[in-house]
Amino acid sequence: MAKMSKMEQSTLPESMTLEQELLVMRDAFRQHQNDIRQKYRISANEMEIILHIHDFGPQRMKAIGEKFKIKFSTLTSLVDKIERLGLVKRVNSKEDRRSILVNITKKGSRMLEEYNDQIKVIATKIKSMAQNETLPGLLETLHHVNS
Amino acid sequence: MAKMSKMEQSTLPESMTLEQELLVMRDAFRQHQNDIRQKYRISANEMEIILHIHDFGPQRMKAIGEKFKIKFSTLTSLVDKIERLGLVKRVNSKEDRRSILVNITKKGSRMLEEYNDQIKVIATKIKSMAQNETLPGLLETLHHVNS
Repeated sequence: MAKMSKMEQSTLPESMTLEQELLVMRDAFRQHQNDIRQKYRISANEMEIILHIHDFGPQRMKAIGEKFKIKFSTLTSLVDKIERLGLVKRVNSKEDRRSILVNITKKGSRMLEEYNDQIKVIATKIKSMAQNETLPGLLETLHHVNS
Repeated sequence: MAKMSKMEQSTLPESMTLEQELLVMRDAFRQHQNDIRQKYRISANEMEIILHIHDFGPQRMKAIGEKFKIKFSTLTSLVDKIERLGLVKRVNSKEDRRSILVNITKKGSRMLEEYNDQIKVIATKIKSMAQNETLPGLLETLHHVNS
Protein backbone atom coordinates (compact mmCIF):
# COMPACT_ATOMS: atom_id res chain seq x y z
CA MET A 1 0.00 0.00 0.00
CA ALA A 2 2.94 2.32 0.60
CA LYS A 3 4.70 1.64 -2.70
CA MET A 4 5.66 4.84 -4.49
CA SER A 5 5.19 4.60 -8.24
CA LYS A 6 7.14 6.45 -10.91
CA MET A 7 4.07 8.51 -11.70
CA GLU A 8 3.94 9.87 -8.19
CA GLN A 9 7.64 10.65 -8.25
CA SER A 10 7.71 12.26 -11.66
CA THR A 11 4.57 14.36 -12.01
CA LEU A 12 4.46 15.77 -8.49
CA PRO A 13 7.07 17.98 -6.86
CA GLU A 14 8.60 16.89 -3.57
CA SER A 15 6.39 19.20 -1.54
CA MET A 16 3.04 17.94 -2.85
CA THR A 17 2.68 15.17 -0.33
CA LEU A 18 -1.10 15.52 -0.23
CA GLU A 19 -1.44 14.41 -3.87
CA GLN A 20 0.93 11.51 -3.21
CA GLU A 21 -1.03 10.29 -0.22
CA LEU A 22 -4.32 10.58 -2.13
CA LEU A 23 -2.82 8.61 -5.05
CA VAL A 24 -1.66 5.85 -2.70
CA MET A 25 -5.12 5.71 -1.12
CA ARG A 26 -6.87 5.62 -4.51
CA ASP A 27 -4.57 2.85 -5.71
CA ALA A 28 -5.22 0.86 -2.52
CA PHE A 29 -8.97 1.14 -3.13
CA ARG A 30 -8.48 -0.04 -6.73
CA GLN A 31 -6.15 -2.87 -5.72
CA HIS A 32 -8.62 -4.13 -3.12
CA GLN A 33 -11.41 -4.11 -5.70
CA ASN A 34 -9.17 -6.05 -8.09
CA ASP A 35 -8.49 -8.63 -5.35
CA ILE A 36 -12.20 -9.07 -4.60
CA ARG A 37 -13.04 -9.38 -8.32
CA GLN A 38 -10.26 -11.92 -8.82
CA LYS A 39 -11.42 -13.96 -5.82
CA TYR A 40 -15.02 -14.06 -7.10
CA ARG A 41 -13.94 -14.30 -10.77
CA ILE A 42 -15.90 -11.33 -12.04
CA SER A 43 -15.09 -8.40 -14.33
CA ALA A 44 -15.27 -4.72 -13.37
CA ASN A 45 -18.55 -4.39 -15.31
CA GLU A 46 -20.06 -7.38 -13.52
CA MET A 47 -19.01 -5.82 -10.19
CA GLU A 48 -20.74 -2.55 -11.14
CA ILE A 49 -23.97 -4.36 -12.00
CA ILE A 50 -23.96 -6.25 -8.68
CA LEU A 51 -23.28 -3.00 -6.77
CA HIS A 52 -26.13 -1.30 -8.64
CA ILE A 53 -28.59 -4.11 -7.80
CA HIS A 54 -27.47 -4.05 -4.18
CA ASP A 55 -27.84 -0.29 -3.88
CA PHE A 56 -31.12 0.14 -5.77
CA GLY A 57 -32.87 -3.20 -5.24
CA PRO A 58 -34.00 -5.88 -7.74
CA GLN A 59 -33.76 -4.64 -11.33
CA ARG A 60 -35.40 -5.54 -14.64
CA MET A 61 -32.94 -6.72 -17.32
CA LYS A 62 -34.08 -3.86 -19.54
CA ALA A 63 -33.28 -1.29 -16.83
CA ILE A 64 -29.80 -2.75 -16.28
CA GLY A 65 -29.15 -2.77 -20.02
CA GLU A 66 -30.15 0.89 -20.32
CA LYS A 67 -28.19 1.96 -17.24
CA PHE A 68 -24.96 0.26 -18.37
CA LYS A 69 -25.51 0.66 -22.13
CA ILE A 70 -25.23 -3.08 -22.76
CA LYS A 71 -27.04 -4.93 -25.58
CA PHE A 72 -29.67 -7.37 -24.36
CA SER A 73 -27.86 -10.43 -25.75
CA THR A 74 -24.56 -9.45 -24.08
CA LEU A 75 -26.38 -8.70 -20.82
CA THR A 76 -28.16 -12.07 -20.88
CA SER A 77 -24.90 -14.02 -21.00
CA LEU A 78 -23.35 -11.69 -18.41
CA VAL A 79 -26.24 -12.24 -15.96
CA ASP A 80 -26.18 -15.99 -16.77
CA LYS A 81 -22.53 -16.00 -15.70
CA ILE A 82 -22.92 -14.15 -12.39
CA GLU A 83 -26.06 -16.20 -11.64
CA ARG A 84 -24.02 -19.41 -12.18
CA LEU A 85 -21.46 -17.97 -9.73
CA GLY A 86 -24.29 -17.59 -7.19
CA LEU A 87 -23.92 -13.81 -6.84
CA VAL A 88 -27.35 -12.84 -8.26
CA LYS A 89 -30.57 -14.70 -9.07
CA ARG A 90 -33.51 -14.08 -11.38
CA VAL A 91 -36.80 -13.79 -9.48
CA ASN A 92 -40.43 -13.17 -10.46
CA SER A 93 -41.65 -9.67 -9.76
CA LYS A 94 -44.34 -9.61 -7.06
CA GLU A 95 -46.13 -6.76 -8.82
CA ASP A 96 -46.17 -8.39 -12.23
CA ARG A 97 -45.56 -12.13 -12.16
CA ARG A 98 -44.69 -12.26 -15.85
CA SER A 99 -41.85 -9.84 -15.23
CA ILE A 100 -38.38 -11.08 -14.24
CA LEU A 101 -36.11 -9.17 -11.87
CA VAL A 102 -32.43 -9.70 -11.08
CA ASN A 103 -31.74 -9.70 -7.35
CA ILE A 104 -28.59 -10.08 -5.27
CA THR A 105 -28.00 -13.31 -3.32
CA LYS A 106 -26.54 -13.80 0.15
CA LYS A 107 -23.23 -14.71 -1.49
CA GLY A 108 -23.35 -11.52 -3.55
CA SER A 109 -24.02 -9.47 -0.40
CA ARG A 110 -21.16 -11.20 1.40
CA MET A 111 -18.84 -10.30 -1.47
CA LEU A 112 -19.81 -6.62 -1.12
CA GLU A 113 -19.32 -6.78 2.65
CA GLU A 114 -15.79 -8.05 2.00
CA TYR A 115 -15.35 -5.19 -0.45
CA ASN A 116 -16.50 -2.72 2.25
CA ASP A 117 -14.33 -4.21 5.00
CA GLN A 118 -11.45 -2.09 3.70
CA ILE A 119 -13.44 1.05 4.55
CA LYS A 120 -13.97 -0.18 8.10
CA VAL A 121 -10.24 -0.87 8.51
CA ILE A 122 -9.37 2.62 7.27
CA ALA A 123 -12.01 4.24 9.51
CA THR A 124 -10.70 2.34 12.54
CA LYS A 125 -7.14 3.45 11.74
CA ILE A 126 -8.26 7.06 11.45
CA LYS A 127 -10.27 6.94 14.68
CA SER A 128 -7.42 5.28 16.58
CA MET A 129 -5.18 8.12 15.50
CA ALA A 130 -7.19 11.29 15.12
CA GLN A 131 -7.67 13.20 18.34
CA ASN A 132 -11.27 13.87 19.24
CA GLU A 133 -10.83 17.51 18.37
CA THR A 134 -9.41 16.83 14.87
CA LEU A 135 -12.05 14.26 13.77
CA PRO A 136 -14.84 16.84 13.17
CA GLY A 137 -12.46 18.87 10.98
CA LEU A 138 -11.47 15.76 9.04
CA LEU A 139 -15.12 14.82 8.50
CA GLU A 140 -15.92 18.34 7.36
CA THR A 141 -13.02 18.19 4.88
CA LEU A 142 -14.15 14.78 3.53
CA HIS A 143 -17.72 16.00 3.23
CA HIS A 144 -16.55 19.08 1.33
CA VAL A 145 -14.48 16.90 -1.03
CA ASN A 146 -17.44 14.58 -1.64
CA SER A 147 -20.05 17.27 -2.30
CA MET B 1 -20.66 12.04 -6.06
CA ALA B 2 -22.81 12.75 -3.00
CA LYS B 3 -25.44 10.05 -3.70
CA MET B 4 -26.15 7.91 -0.64
CA SER B 5 -26.61 4.27 -1.55
CA LYS B 6 -28.75 1.70 0.26
CA MET B 7 -25.59 -0.03 1.41
CA GLU B 8 -24.40 3.04 3.23
CA GLN B 9 -27.80 3.54 4.82
CA SER B 10 -28.34 -0.05 5.88
CA THR B 11 -25.00 -1.35 7.14
CA LEU B 12 -23.83 1.77 8.94
CA PRO B 13 -25.56 3.44 11.89
CA GLU B 14 -26.46 7.12 11.66
CA SER B 15 -23.44 8.20 13.67
CA MET B 16 -20.77 6.52 11.52
CA THR B 17 -20.35 9.40 9.15
CA LEU B 18 -16.64 8.69 8.64
CA GLU B 19 -17.37 5.32 6.97
CA GLN B 20 -20.04 6.96 4.82
CA GLU B 21 -17.71 9.71 3.64
CA LEU B 22 -14.95 7.17 2.87
CA LEU B 23 -17.43 5.02 0.90
CA VAL B 24 -18.54 8.02 -1.14
CA MET B 25 -14.91 8.90 -1.84
CA ARG B 26 -14.03 5.32 -2.82
CA ASP B 27 -17.05 5.13 -5.13
CA ALA B 28 -16.08 8.46 -6.73
CA PHE B 29 -12.58 7.08 -7.41
CA ARG B 30 -14.11 3.94 -8.94
CA GLN B 31 -16.65 5.90 -10.98
CA HIS B 32 -13.95 8.17 -12.40
CA GLN B 33 -11.87 5.14 -13.39
CA ASN B 34 -14.95 3.64 -15.09
CA ASP B 35 -15.47 6.91 -17.00
CA ILE B 36 -11.86 6.97 -18.19
CA ARG B 37 -11.97 3.29 -19.21
CA GLN B 38 -15.23 3.85 -21.08
CA LYS B 39 -13.82 6.90 -22.87
CA TYR B 40 -10.72 4.98 -23.99
CA ARG B 41 -12.66 1.70 -24.51
CA ILE B 42 -10.50 -0.48 -22.28
CA SER B 43 -11.22 -3.07 -19.60
CA ALA B 44 -10.10 -2.88 -15.98
CA ASN B 45 -7.36 -5.46 -16.69
CA GLU B 46 -6.10 -3.45 -19.65
CA MET B 47 -6.02 -0.34 -17.43
CA GLU B 48 -3.96 -2.21 -14.83
CA ILE B 49 -1.42 -3.33 -17.44
CA ILE B 50 -1.04 0.22 -18.78
CA LEU B 51 -0.60 1.57 -15.22
CA HIS B 52 2.01 -1.11 -14.53
CA ILE B 53 4.00 -0.26 -17.67
CA HIS B 54 3.78 3.44 -16.84
CA ASP B 55 4.95 2.94 -13.25
CA PHE B 56 7.72 0.40 -13.89
CA GLY B 57 8.85 1.20 -17.44
CA PRO B 58 8.82 -0.92 -20.64
CA GLN B 59 7.98 -4.57 -19.89
CA ARG B 60 8.59 -7.89 -21.61
CA MET B 61 5.40 -9.76 -22.56
CA LYS B 62 6.52 -12.66 -20.39
CA ALA B 63 6.91 -10.40 -17.34
CA ILE B 64 3.44 -8.90 -17.87
CA GLY B 65 1.93 -12.38 -18.26
CA GLU B 66 3.53 -13.54 -15.02
CA LYS B 67 2.60 -10.41 -13.09
CA PHE B 68 -1.07 -10.53 -14.13
CA LYS B 69 -1.36 -14.33 -14.41
CA ILE B 70 -2.49 -14.17 -18.05
CA LYS B 71 -1.80 -16.89 -20.63
CA PHE B 72 0.52 -15.76 -23.42
CA SER B 73 -2.14 -16.16 -26.16
CA THR B 74 -4.68 -14.09 -24.20
CA LEU B 75 -2.04 -11.47 -23.45
CA THR B 76 -1.02 -11.25 -27.09
CA SER B 77 -4.54 -10.33 -28.24
CA LEU B 78 -4.94 -7.99 -25.26
CA VAL B 79 -1.73 -6.09 -26.11
CA ASP B 80 -2.72 -6.15 -29.81
CA LYS B 81 -5.95 -4.40 -28.83
CA ILE B 82 -4.42 -1.64 -26.65
CA GLU B 83 -1.68 -1.15 -29.26
CA ARG B 84 -4.38 -0.66 -31.95
CA LEU B 85 -5.96 1.92 -29.62
CA GLY B 86 -2.59 3.73 -29.55
CA LEU B 87 -2.12 3.43 -25.77
CA VAL B 88 0.99 1.21 -25.85
CA LYS B 89 3.52 0.17 -28.49
CA ARG B 90 5.88 -2.74 -28.94
CA VAL B 91 9.52 -1.63 -29.15
CA ASN B 92 12.86 -3.38 -29.54
CA SER B 93 14.89 -3.63 -26.37
CA LYS B 94 18.07 -1.57 -26.53
CA GLU B 95 19.94 -4.17 -24.46
CA ASP B 96 18.85 -7.14 -26.55
CA ARG B 97 17.55 -6.22 -30.01
CA ARG B 98 15.84 -9.58 -30.47
CA SER B 99 13.77 -8.90 -27.38
CA ILE B 100 10.44 -7.03 -27.58
CA LEU B 101 9.22 -4.68 -24.87
CA VAL B 102 5.79 -3.10 -24.42
CA ASN B 103 6.00 0.64 -23.72
CA ILE B 104 3.40 3.30 -23.06
CA THR B 105 2.68 5.92 -25.75
CA LYS B 106 1.99 9.64 -25.38
CA LYS B 107 -1.72 8.89 -25.74
CA GLY B 108 -1.45 6.29 -22.97
CA SER B 109 0.31 8.78 -20.72
CA ARG B 110 -2.34 11.42 -21.47
CA MET B 111 -5.04 8.93 -20.45
CA LEU B 112 -3.31 8.39 -17.10
CA GLU B 113 -2.94 12.13 -16.60
CA GLU B 114 -6.69 12.45 -17.09
CA TYR B 115 -7.13 9.63 -14.59
CA ASN B 116 -4.94 11.53 -12.08
CA ASP B 117 -6.64 14.88 -12.64
CA GLN B 118 -9.28 13.80 -10.13
CA ILE B 119 -6.57 13.64 -7.43
CA LYS B 120 -5.48 17.19 -8.24
CA VAL B 121 -9.09 18.43 -8.00
CA ILE B 122 -9.52 16.75 -4.60
CA ALA B 123 -6.17 18.09 -3.33
CA THR B 124 -7.10 21.61 -4.43
CA LYS B 125 -10.46 21.32 -2.64
CA ILE B 126 -8.75 20.14 0.54
CA LYS B 127 -6.13 22.88 0.41
CA SER B 128 -8.72 25.58 -0.25
CA MET B 129 -10.55 24.45 2.84
CA ALA B 130 -8.10 23.09 5.37
CA GLN B 131 -6.53 25.73 7.57
CA ASN B 132 -2.76 25.77 7.50
CA GLU B 133 -2.67 24.32 11.00
CA THR B 134 -4.96 21.36 10.16
CA LEU B 135 -3.21 20.27 6.93
CA PRO B 136 -0.18 18.66 8.68
CA GLY B 137 -2.57 16.63 10.87
CA LEU B 138 -4.56 15.55 7.83
CA LEU B 139 -1.39 14.51 6.01
CA GLU B 140 -0.22 12.57 9.05
CA THR B 141 -3.57 10.77 9.20
CA LEU B 142 -3.47 9.91 5.48
CA HIS B 143 0.10 8.70 5.78
CA HIS B 144 -0.84 6.50 8.75
CA VAL B 145 -3.78 5.04 6.79
CA ASN B 146 -1.55 4.34 3.78
CA SER B 147 1.27 2.69 5.68
